[in-house]
Parts: sequence; structure tokens; C-alpha cells
Amino acid sequence: MKKESIIYGVHPLLEAIEAGKTVEKVLLQRGLSAETQNKIIPLLKEHNIPLQLVPKAKLDFVTTRSHQGIIAYISPVEYYDLGWIIPTIYERGEVPLILVLDRITDVRNFGAICRSAECAGVHAVVIPMRGAAQINEDAVKTSAGAVMRLPICKVASLKETLHYLSDSGMSIISCEESGTETYYKANLTMPVALVMGSEEDGISPPLRPYIDKAVRIPMGGQTESLNVSVATGVVLFEVLRQRAS
Amino acid sequence: MKKESIIYGVHPLLEAIEAGKTVEKVLLQRGLSAETQNKIIPLLKEHNIPLQLVPKAKLDFVTTRSHQGIIAYISPVEYYDLGWIIPTIYERGEVPLILVLDRITDVRNFGAICRSAECAGVHAVVIPMRGAAQINEDAVKTSAGAVMRLPICKVASLKETLHYLSDSGMSIISCEESGTETYYKANLTMPVALVMGSEEDGISPPLRPYIDKAVRIPMGGQTESLNVSVATGVVLFEVLRQRAS
Repeated sequence: MKKESIIYGVHPLLEAIEAGKTVEKVLLQRGLSAETQNKIIPLLKEHNIPLQLVPKAKLDFVTTRSHQGIIAYISPVEYYDLGWIIPTIYERGEVPLILVLDRITDVRNFGAICRSAECAGVHAVVIPMRGAAQINEDAVKTSAGAVMRLPICKVASLKETLHYLSDSGMSIISCEESGTETYYKANLTMPVALVMGSEEDGISPPLRPYIDKAVRIPMGGQTESLNVSVATGVVLFEVLRQRAS
Repeated sequence: MKKESIIYGVHPLLEAIEAGKTVEKVLLQRGLSAETQNKIIPLLKEHNIPLQLVPKAKLDFVTTRSHQGIIAYISPVEYYDLGWIIPTIYERGEVPLILVLDRITDVRNFGAICRSAECAGVHAVVIPMRGAAQINEDAVKTSAGAVMRLPICKVASLKETLHYLSDSGMSIISCEESGTETYYKANLTMPVALVMGSEEDGISPPLRPYIDKAVRIPMGGQTESLNVSVATGVVLFEVLRQRAS
């Protein structure tokens, strides 16, 4: 991650927030003065910025600069508002294709997925506020720059987002090994939000009630599953194929 | 790479070759005695083992052990003979699906491709003797072990191999940005050898005359191309889709 994307100290953090920069995460030293805490913590909550309380040693490990007990990571991308994107897609007369990533934490997988998503003309990628890969220089690089060109929406609750997408006329389709229908037999020509689950344990149980259909990619070998970025590519390009036919 | 897969000195190398182990590559110290050179070099040529003449300092950098001027890398996989695989596929009444990798040198891409290939039921992956990714522990890991389960054929000449595959009744299909037909419009139900080109410059010019059809994956965004492992997955699973329909 470039040096410029890390900031140190109370005032630089307050300025960054005021300037509308996207703060990815703040490391706050344990035991800071009540005054500082009262200034910082409510503001972070208000802007939904994840906060980690850490010992001073951790901050000293990150930087040799004077940090005043605060280190903040600025995102290289600007996030988009899903509530603004969805109506825009419909207004343009296009059929929405949204990609929802449920706890994809590997930075390289996230980058590779964004590259494929941009290639497939996905309208937006949705990631959760907590439990997503950090969008850093590695992600930008693995995505061949796609994360800078593709609208990415960071949401507080994937559950509420799926609810919203469903209300907006989208079929919520997950791709999983346990899916009941082969992916190319599902009708993907209507508005679709494709949900891809974490590399470890798939789709989170709380999201289950919002999934309209779980599809699977049939496997021909002994390997249990595709890499999540390849699986995402296979389903996204099937959407394109069906919509072009 | 595990320590066990690197061997040091003349006799261990001779023993490994005699035991039929697959030697990936030999580093030979410059200026070794004529006796040693005459013993080693013709044998490496006979077994088509790539040889690199290097200064002693390079060998000392690789190991602190006594290496007698020779370090050899043993492959974690056993290679298969394509001339044995193709007839076997036909005898089993299956429609061949062969994947030919033209200078895919990134170890992680190679591993990811092998994972997808095994998932798609590819019969064999063909790589060139020179200019392929080294099959090491990283490749095994990225492939989720697929490189150990999937027949991999290492050939001296990709040109001759494409000629042979063509003679064996296969359509030689490349996937490239400059392809003339959309991949899903091509008939992929007949025997197919899919050729994927290098990340840098695509298919080598000498292979061109052997390509029956170049297909392309239509791109919907501004990113020029998919990652080669995702592109491979998209086309392989289209083959499966067509063959199942």
C-alpha cells in the first residue's frame, strides 16, 4: 500500500473525514485520553468506519513516525451508493447484474473477481463493511486496475442489501457446491444479483432466507470446487451468453 | 519447494535419473572438470532435461550443503505420455478435451488453471519442456492438489504436439482477444484441444498454422482481458455445457 494512503494522528484523520475521503479502518491506541476518545469514536461510528483498539506496540510496528495513537487507512477507491446505482441502471434501460461478495477476504481473489466482473460488465460489486478483503494496492494490481473503474458499494448489512435488491426486482442467486440447479439451466436473463460466498464456508446462514435460487457448477474431476474467482467468472459469462442469445 | 525435491551432487543426480524420477532442471557450475561434464551433459540431453550453466556463487546461494557443482530439481509430479493418453480416451468412448498451455509462466496462474482443468474433467494438460511454469509446491498449493491428480504432459515441441493432436482428430482451438468467433458460438462438442497463450503475448507465431479456430470471450467493460486462469475456466465450462446439452 502506498505511504500516502496511511495517515497518522488526530487532526489528519479529522481532516480526511471532513474532506469526504473513504477511511477503510482506524487503529486506535488503547488508553488514549478520554478527550481524544470522545472526539474520535462517535465520529467513526457516525461514518461507519471500523475501529480496532490496539496496544501502542502495534502502532509503533506499523510506523516509525509520530502517530499520536491513531493510524488510519484511506481507501484507494471511492465507494458508490447502491441506492443511487440501481435506479440509474433501470433508467438506462439495462438489465441489472450485481455481484455480492459475502466475506471474500483474500485480497488476490477479490482483485481477480473485480477484474472478471468489470470484463463481464457487472454494474456494481457489493461488499460488507466488515469481513471483506482490504482494498489495497495488491487488490488494485491483481484486478488490473478494475477496482478503480468498477462501482464498489460497501454496505453495513448484506442482509438488508439483499432485501433491497429483491425489492428492486432482482433475483438473488447464489453459486454454491450444494446448489440445486445447474447454473446454465437457471434463467439468468432477468435482473440478477449473484452472491458468492466465502472461500471457507460459503454463504452466511443469515443470508439464506434472501436467496431465491442456489445454482451449482457441475464438477467433472476429484477437486471439490473451483477457485472462487474462476467460479464467479464462469457464472458471470453465462449470464452474458444467455442475455446475448 | 520441499527440501526433498532438491538434490545435490553427481551421484544423487545419476541415481535420480536411473530411478526414473522426473528432473525439472539442473544447475551446473561453470568450469567443472571435463570428466564430470562429459558424464552429465549428454545424459541430460538424452533425457531432455533443461540445463543451466551458472557461477558457483549461485549454487552457494541456493544451498549451504556440499553440492559438488550440481543442483537438480525433482518434479513433484510424474509426467504422462500424450501418445498413450489420446488412444485411451477414444477407447473409453469419451470425447477428448485437451488443454495446451503455451508459455504460461506464472506459477499461481498455472496452478489455478490446473485446478479449473481438473474440475472440468480435462483429460490432459500439455506444457512445453521449456518456457513453462515450474511445477513446485506453490503450483501444487494454488491448484488445490489438482496438479497431482491431473495428467500433465511435458513435450519437446508444442508445434509437433498440435500436429499430432490434429492428426488424432482434434479441433485445435485457441482463445484470444483477437479471436474471430465468440467462444459460445463455436461448436465445442467434438474432440477439442484448447490452446491458451502466454500472459504477455498470447499464442506463439510458430503455432498459428496449427490453430483451426481462434475464439474470443466478449468483454463488457474497459479492462482489456480476463486473467488467463479465469478465461480458461470460462471456455472449459462452456465445453462442458455444450456437451451436456
